[in-house]
Amino acid sequence: MSLKIHVELDYWFEQPTDVILQFEAAAIPEQVIESAHVEMTPTEHFTRVASHDTVGERILIRIDGRLQVDYRATVQVQRVLEDCLKLDVVPPHQLPGETIQYLLPSRYCPADQFQQFVEAEFGAVEGGAKVIAMRDWIADHFSYVPGVSDSETTALDTFVKRQGICRDYAHVMITFARAAGIPARIASVFAPGVEPPDFHAVAEVFLGGAWHLVDPTGMAQEGDMAKIGIGRDAADVAFLTAFGNAVMNSQSVSVEMV
Amino acid sequence: MSLKIHVELDYWFEQPTDVILQFEAAAIPEQVIESAHVEMTPTEHFTRVASHDTVGERILIRIDGRLQVDYRATVQVQRVLEDCLKLDVVPPHQLPGETIQYLLPSRYCPADQFQQFVEAEFGAVEGGAKVIAMRDWIADHFSYVPGVSDSETTALDTFVKRQGICRDYAHVMITFARAAGIPARIASVFAPGVEPPDFHAVAEVFLGGAWHLVDPTGMAQEGDMAKIGIGRDAADVAFLTAFGNAVMNSQSVSVEMV
Amino acid sequence: MSLKIHVELDYWFEQPTDVILQFEAAAIPEQVIESAHVEMTPTEHFTRVASHDTVGERILIRIDGRLQVDYRATVQVQRVLEDCLKLDVVPPHQLPGETIQYLLPSRYCPADQFQQFVEAEFGAVEGGAKVIAMRDWIADHFSYVPGVSDSETTALDTFVKRQGICRDYAHVMITFARAAGIPARIASVFAPGVEPPDFHAVAEVFLGGAWHLVDPTGMAQEGDMAKIGIGRDAADVAFLTAFGNAVMNSQSVSVEMV
Amino acid sequence: MSLKIHVELDYWFEQPTDVILQFEAAAIPEQVIESAHVEMTPTEHFTRVASHDTVGERILIRIDGRLQVDYRATVQVQRVLEDCLKLDVVPPHQLPGETIQYLLPSRYCPADQFQQFVEAEFGAVEGGAKVIAMRDWIADHFSYVPGVSDSETTALDTFVKRQGICRDYAHVMITFARAAGIPARIASVFAPGVEPPDFHAVAEVFLGGAWHLVDPTGMAQEGDMAKIGIGRDAADVAFLTAFGNAVMNSQSVSVEMV
Repeated sequence: MSLKIHVELDYWFEQPTDVILQFEAAAIPEQVIESAHVEMTPTEHFTRVASHDTVGERILIRIDGRLQVDYRATVQVQRVLEDCLKLDVVPPHQLPGETIQYLLPSRYCPADQFQQFVEAEFGAVEGGAKVIAMRDWIADHFSYVPGVSDSETTALDTFVKRQGICRDYAHVMITFARAAGIPARIASVFAPGVEPPDFHAVAEVFLGGAWHLVDPTGMAQEGDMAKIGIGRDAADVAFLTAFGNAVMNSQSVSVEMV
Repeated sequence: MSLKIHVELDYWFEQPTDVILQFEAAAIPEQVIESAHVEMTPTEHFTRVASHDTVGERILIRIDGRLQVDYRATVQVQRVLEDCLKLDVVPPHQLPGETIQYLLPSRYCPADQFQQFVEAEFGAVEGGAKVIAMRDWIADHFSYVPGVSDSETTALDTFVKRQGICRDYAHVMITFARAAGIPARIASVFAPGVEPPDFHAVAEVFLGGAWHLVDPTGMAQEGDMAKIGIGRDAADVAFLTAFGNAVMNSQSVSVEMV
Repeated sequence: MSLKIHVELDYWFEQPTDVILQFEAAAIPEQVIESAHVEMTPTEHFTRVASHDTVGERILIRIDGRLQVDYRATVQVQRVLEDCLKLDVVPPHQLPGETIQYLLPSRYCPADQFQQFVEAEFGAVEGGAKVIAMRDWIADHFSYVPGVSDSETTALDTFVKRQGICRDYAHVMITFARAAGIPARIASVFAPGVEPPDFHAVAEVFLGGAWHLVDPTGMAQEGDMAKIGIGRDAADVAFLTAFGNAVMNSQSVSVEMV
Repeated sequence: MSLKIHVELDYWFEQPTDVILQFEAAAIPEQVIESAHVEMTPTEHFTRVASHDTVGERILIRIDGRLQVDYRATVQVQRVLEDCLKLDVVPPHQLPGETIQYLLPSRYCPADQFQQFVEAEFGAVEGGAKVIAMRDWIADHFSYVPGVSDSETTALDTFVKRQGICRDYAHVMITFARAAGIPARIASVFAPGVEPPDFHAVAEVFLGGAWHLVDPTGMAQEGDMAKIGIGRDAADVAFLTAFGNAVMNSQSVSVEMV
């Protein structure tokens, strides 16, 4: 299965501004970048650096005035799919060292506050079924409502409000998993079927010794997503972080299965 | 300059519990572990894994009943000291990729909320002097008061309360630096002169292309500290994280210059 | 039914301090003060003022050094008891003006954040049965655990933690009711059977045109409580508010049915 | 000095909805309602009740479909003006009972968290000058920026962000005053010179035995404002509270000095 991706960004910076971009499908074993092409406004400075945990790359630029980006790619997803229900939870004492940061609380995922809730609600479910129970609980109790959350909305806020967008759903899923001692992180992805079309965010949980994508919004399937980057939460995978004011003129993301 | 370190931990676990420990001076270029010896209650499971950003190690155990740890070490600190006042701030677009996670907000350091304050208060100060101004502002405005903060206290809480302990001071320092576009992280350290003697936490900021320890409590000097680990904030450097109930019987930390 | 009440407070103030006290059973129609006697350390200043919504009194003092209070009273409770299940919810447009403040969010009861949750969980239940469903939900999902909450703990914190003491239970009950458009306030009370014996706090909801006490901890019965005061939340009914440092030497509350 | 006031509200309710309105200048000694006229869409139910602390009135309605309000009034302000700098702070133990609720923390004004800050920043200033110092500190450190705050923004958020609108300024002013033991409340007012023209919110502090309006935004003068209502914070003085969805078609407020 391949995805045909097209991203167009058009932003305006009134003064010279440092910007971190991350909008390209990552070159990682689970997905083959069949073709990729980026056109970008020439900038004073342009560097690529490895992104969080070396999945994908960030582009560091310094820009003054208009920034246009046109990114086109075809990505073949060859992720090994497994039924989470049949996978085991790896107990903390057997975890690989590099997964431990994903057990710990982060800006939007204060897992330390959710231990009683998670124990009460999901304590009786064992193994990967616990993760599926969490995903279904979120799907059952939350409504997808754009505009009710912003860049300061945490999983705690969303848990109470029961409304949000993909990143809010993912933050609650991640928070629940960590509170149960299961490493969980965010993945920013390209996925077909996202409505309205946009960058998408889902959770990724560590079960049976490997990472597995879980989308509590139900909009995307594990086998159909191309990863852009991963991180502890949305703070780590923003497609554009500006150290100064940025004005969006327009932005579009299209993802098709081919 | 060498430090003679002695840590004794005595904890009780009522049922089999997974525990992550991190209490040893890290083997890193800036400090030579001249001698080190750990005695620990035999446990069902014992693994060492690299800790955050591969500085130091975490020990993963599974324990039932009493856990006693006796750690003795002599560490020679050979950190290159530089005057922060003379160092440059590296603009975000020139940062090494691995420092970028330390620009982003974390559990206890919501730097995204402090940009106006930091611009208003420290915007006029350039270079490393900005970091020193932040450190001095914290030292001037805060009181070191044990017991007013807990494991949920963020830099925002401390900023308003103006009271806290070493980790609270470090969180505010880190938050200020990140809000100004300067990478900053927490370092858990052994330091002489800490009153009462305990594990200590300080900030580490990225200036002039390297990391520099800054202690806004004023209790420890950059050249006298042995690092245990580093992380985005205190969530990453706890000396003991238990996945279940832990009861402390006793705990002591002693650090002497020799 | 009468209650025999004995309160002893022993506090220390290192410097002259303004203090607001509210520890006496209120003289209101639903309870007859059969006898009452207060002995208190002589103070520089002593005034009685009506308390919140004129239920009970606050004592305003200025004190330097030791403050001892000995309060003994016998109170006959003659509250009219009604089965909440049979009462109607008064819709907001028909509410008496003086109840409206108890519909609005307060320091510890951010009802504005709970509308979706309350609609989803209790939206299908009508009338006073909705209040009983809320009370039972709290009783089922929360654990009474002293020490996990403090003077900054809100209903939002407790809702997530699912642990707390009487005031936390009451705050969640009040928040749920207000989010459903039902006026609700806190009542500080004397009640027999509270374990450990102490001042107690419960919710009071406006159903069928009158106020009804509801205790989600299950420790106290509506007909057995003597009210000290009422308010929007615990901020309004503290038994001691000091404008400066107060040190508790000892404090005891005993309540017996006679 | 008189104010000529014209308010037009045009809202839409998709289903029968209970609504609380408060948009009229209050009939209180400090201002004479020379003329007042309200035209409103006929509603299923219409009642007037006294508002918070009996200042002004709330209108309770039940409405289905379009709600149009046209309110015109001329109000002569005859408030006695005094120079706050010359007034005394009334110590808590000498306060009238009805002012005490305004000492206590509320939804948007968590004064309990600001005692150290207020003591450190304003502790040395005595009497009414303390209030003026607070007002000037806010004016100096904050920027008036619409759109950065919403209905959940507390004084704590605004204190850190240093940006907001009139209600945010008022909340911080109220919080500071209460943290210093000075009763303070919010006043919703009509004031000329507000840009853009709208309902305005200011603080009112209790000094020298009476209430005095203080506007930290600097947009309105004490002698030129007509009060609509007062309350513990913005939760108590909303001009429209709907128990269901409300859609604003248009809204205008004009206030002229005549």
